[in-house]
Amino acid sequence: MQAALIRDKQFWVEDIPTPTPGDGEVLVKVLSCGICGSDLHLFNHGPELVAKAEAAGSPIDDIGHDMVLGHEFVGEIVAFGPGTEQKLSLGDRVTSVPFLMKDGAIVPIGASKLVTGAYAQYLVLTESLLVTVPDGMSNDAAALAEPLAIGVHAVAKAAMKEDDVALVVGCGPIGLAVVAALKMKGYTKIIASDFAAKRRKLASDLGASQVIDPASESPYEALAALGGSGHVIFECVGFKGLINEIIIGAPQASRVVIAGICMEEDMFMPMLAVSKELLLQFVTYYTPEEFSESLQALADNRLNWRPWITGKVNLQGVGRAFEELKNPEKHAKILIEPWA
Amino acid sequence: MQAALIRDKQFWVEDIPTPTPGDGEVLVKVLSCGICGSDLHLFNHGPELVAKAEAAGSPIDDIGHDMVLGHEFVGEIVAFGPGTEQKLSLGDRVTSVPFLMKDGAIVPIGASKLVTGAYAQYLVLTESLLVTVPDGMSNDAAALAEPLAIGVHAVAKAAMKEDDVALVVGCGPIGLAVVAALKMKGYTKIIASDFAAKRRKLASDLGASQVIDPASESPYEALAALGGSGHVIFECVGFKGLINEIIIGAPQASRVVIAGICMEEDMFMPMLAVSKELLLQFVTYYTPEEFSESLQALADNRLNWRPWITGKVNLQGVGRAFEELKNPEKHAKILIEPWA
Repeated sequence: MQAALIRDKQFWVEDIPTPTPGDGEVLVKVLSCGICGSDLHLFNHGPELVAKAEAAGSPIDDIGHDMVLGHEFVGEIVAFGPGTEQKLSLGDRVTSVPFLMKDGAIVPIGASKLVTGAYAQYLVLTESLLVTVPDGMSNDAAALAEPLAIGVHAVAKAAMKEDDVALVVGCGPIGLAVVAALKMKGYTKIIASDFAAKRRKLASDLGASQVIDPASESPYEALAALGGSGHVIFECVGFKGLINEIIIGAPQASRVVIAGICMEEDMFMPMLAVSKELLLQFVTYYTPEEFSESLQALADNRLNWRPWITGKVNLQGVGRAFEELKNPEKHAKILIEPWA
Repeated sequence: MQAALIRDKQFWVEDIPTPTPGDGEVLVKVLSCGICGSDLHLFNHGPELVAKAEAAGSPIDDIGHDMVLGHEFVGEIVAFGPGTEQKLSLGDRVTSVPFLMKDGAIVPIGASKLVTGAYAQYLVLTESLLVTVPDGMSNDAAALAEPLAIGVHAVAKAAMKEDDVALVVGCGPIGLAVVAALKMKGYTKIIASDFAAKRRKLASDLGASQVIDPASESPYEALAALGGSGHVIFECVGFKGLINEIIIGAPQASRVVIAGICMEEDMFMPMLAVSKELLLQFVTYYTPEEFSESLQALADNRLNWRPWITGKVNLQGVGRAFEELKNPEKHAKILIEPWA
């Protein structure tokens, strides 16, 4: 099968062996796969991440070489491995949380060299984790279930009350997912802040009630001005120093949900957080239920998801897509169609 | 009246004018006043705190000179100011949250030069904030209401479930209050960790089910070993680096209540907190309800509070008490009796 491999900071489309589904696994033909912010991060900073993980005492494998990314996928069942229950049929469209169950262990798909990701024509999935894509739902929408689930989980962990007001700091892939999830959950006061006009426009399209360019206006003052029973701030960037910027700007008793991924050592002023009685909730991933809920919300068109997708490429186009995604004024989500 | 004043890092007992109760205020004769950890901090680091507050853009007054500390007090009403309701009588024993209401503004007692604290023979309090000390309750117990309220508040903000297990890191004044509050609230799995044997003994006396010397054993491993539905870690020290130590040691999905006061810039690894989905709840002070609840619990002897008090001095002894409190193997709470 064809796959887009990372090697020496470039993508190479090559023929590699089609994987074989093992015990309890199925083989799917990949119909579409989104490019995630964490894919960009792995691609741009792979060697550093490997070195840091090693230094932190939890080594990861060498992701910079001959690695196949891709964990926001939708596919079609083409083969069943041994010991499968086969309640679904060949040709059924499915997606899954991006993990394989291997002898009780959880192996991430598209984030290690142990398992080939979905920047490829075929993919192995664990049968018991499959989620059926509802009839009539487009592949485009189905590919957004995974990134939306990140937002749904962040919002769930915020434990918001009906009248709470939200500030989403950063409208990259995570921030847009949080905006979409807030809208989907019925919140009406959603401020989205980003330096890029394109991203502010996308946040508006996905449901932000107010967008702010932090270069010209303080998002924290805008948040305080909105009133409401409580203030929730979503950190969706992961830049060093941003958590402390939020601690400085946050209204008294704010809840801060940290969904951005800062891989570096960071600094903060505990005393400021103490004096405001802030709550910092760090979040990652989502539950299988949140994943299914996201898929269903997209199937039901409960959110205006179309503007989120700003481009499509085939496997040959992956390198160019990664290049274009560096420009925040150009793209949000690019989907890869490995058979196009 | 006699008062113990800080001047040039020493205590001086001097005659200063007895304060006059203003509108809505009462004058009380101070019967007892505890020495708080924050008093030690103000005494030892006053000039630095002033400089830091200035640098942080929220200047405080020059607390190192001619300042009267004291905010853990019990007293007896000796005079009513103008415009008071006088529902209580002269001679009634009272305490209060350590604040004055001045034209709608809240002024802390014993933490600024605007208001004389309770290291003195008399004290002005706001009538509407007075809490009556129950009959039969000793002055000793009543003086502990304020520090206990700090613990009661920290435990309340932890939003613990019945089966949750707690680790209290540091058994200084805040840590002991948290241990006492946990015990008072009926939690049975309470690990207390401190390098000093005396403090570990005090934590046991106040209700810890297990004490740990972190020099010889990991408190985090002990916490994980206890099981339970959830893990709550109380940071009660405020040393730079300790929050990150907790982030490294905490079991997955722990809730960390930060009650220690680190005045310095601190560092942490956001990625570690993200990968464990930790919650950091910063806390300070307490509500008036929590203060009253603490007073009542002490009045009802619902906790074994006596070991908490390890010494008593008069105003002349304040300097020596501050010296002795530097040694964690010697003291927990020292009470000042200004008329002794």
